Amino acid sequence: MAHIGTGVEYALHCLTWIAAPLERPPSSRDLAEMQGVPPAFLKKIFPKLEKAGIVEASGGIRGGYRLARSPEQISVLDVVDAVEGRKRLFDCQEIRGHCALFEGKPPAWSTSGVCGIHAVMIRAEKVMRDELAKTSLAALMGPLVTKIQPPGFAGQVRDWFAGRQLAREDARVSGMRSRATPADEEGA
Amino acid sequence: MAHIGTGVEYALHCLTWIAAPLERPPSSRDLAEMQGVPPAFLKKIFPKLEKAGIVEASGGIRGGYRLARSPEQISVLDVVDAVEGRKRLFDCQEIRGHCALFEGKPPAWSTSGVCGIHAVMIRAEKVMRDELAKTSLAALMGPLVTKIQPPGFAGQVRDWFAGRQLAREDARVSGMRSRATPADEEGA
Repeated sequence: MAHIGTGVEYALHCLTWIAAPLERPPSSRDLAEMQGVPPAFLKKIFPKLEKAGIVEASGGIRGGYRLARSPEQISVLDVVDAVEGRKRLFDCQEIRGHCALFEGKPPAWSTSGVCGIHAVMIRAEKVMRDELAKTSLAALMGPLVTKIQPPGFAGQVRDWFAGRQLAREDARVSGMRSRATPADEEGA
Repeated sequence: MAHIGTGVEYALHCLTWIAAPLERPPSSRDLAEMQGVPPAFLKKIFPKLEKAGIVEASGGIRGGYRLARSPEQISVLDVVDAVEGRKRLFDCQEIRGHCALFEGKPPAWSTSGVCGIHAVMIRAEKVMRDELAKTSLAALMGPLVTKIQPPGFAGQVRDWFAGRQLAREDARVSGMRSRATPADEEGA
């Protein structure tokens, strides 16, 4: 599995949809169906984004997720850390202290400071994280909205999500009616 | 598991031992025992380093591994790629083409060029790899030999490896003798 996994990819794509102007916050199921990705997997990712203060849930039947802060204040690194946790590029096993010559008693010089090999990995991880921190959600969306998507696309997206929400409400109302009918008959 | 795994860590530690002046190239088993790491695991790593032109095997009973090029010409990145293969930081699933609005027929604009999310990951991977390429085995060993290890240590290491090689030869000779004895008796 790649170091930065599918969960991060789905999360970032979802955030670009949420950050667009929509009538109401979409649910994780709507977002999954919009993108053709597994709803059960997305459902597990959103609580992580919520815990990290990237999205917030608005409850109720019309409930869904919206950004908890502006797209300028959400970096790709924030999303990676929210979804993956603070996963290290390299886990140092400190094998330098196991040298046979030390016979189980490594001298202080052999284990003091950071191992030189670990130090290289820490530097590589730092530049990688710095690079991920440079791009905000706003920067990701900029070319998408201004250059890539055709003018009418944002409206189509809004209509699709609004249609999904209406369909959900209709289903709920007719569900209430069908549950209410037998009880009415009983009472009658 | 970390992106840069234990195999790379063991390989880099081994290379610092091999690069030091030794009477003869040590075997992967000697290197494993010197460092207290699993011999079976190291045995699988060395063919990868050999294939990548980082070490070369010298055959026979006294056989072992030596560097195939100078420590200045071996970077940490070379070792990472040799051991891990060309493992990507991120595998783009190209989910942008799966948008429900496209109904299975994504328009050209939706999938042309590199996805913006993938592009960020490619940049992060590039700076990480560039950083790993900056440090050579010689640079890793420099402070180890000149600042960290006490003056007598290199000699102790040489003696330890030489002792191991002698023990192996003795075992081989006595093995040949014990195998030869019954045959001699038969012949006699």
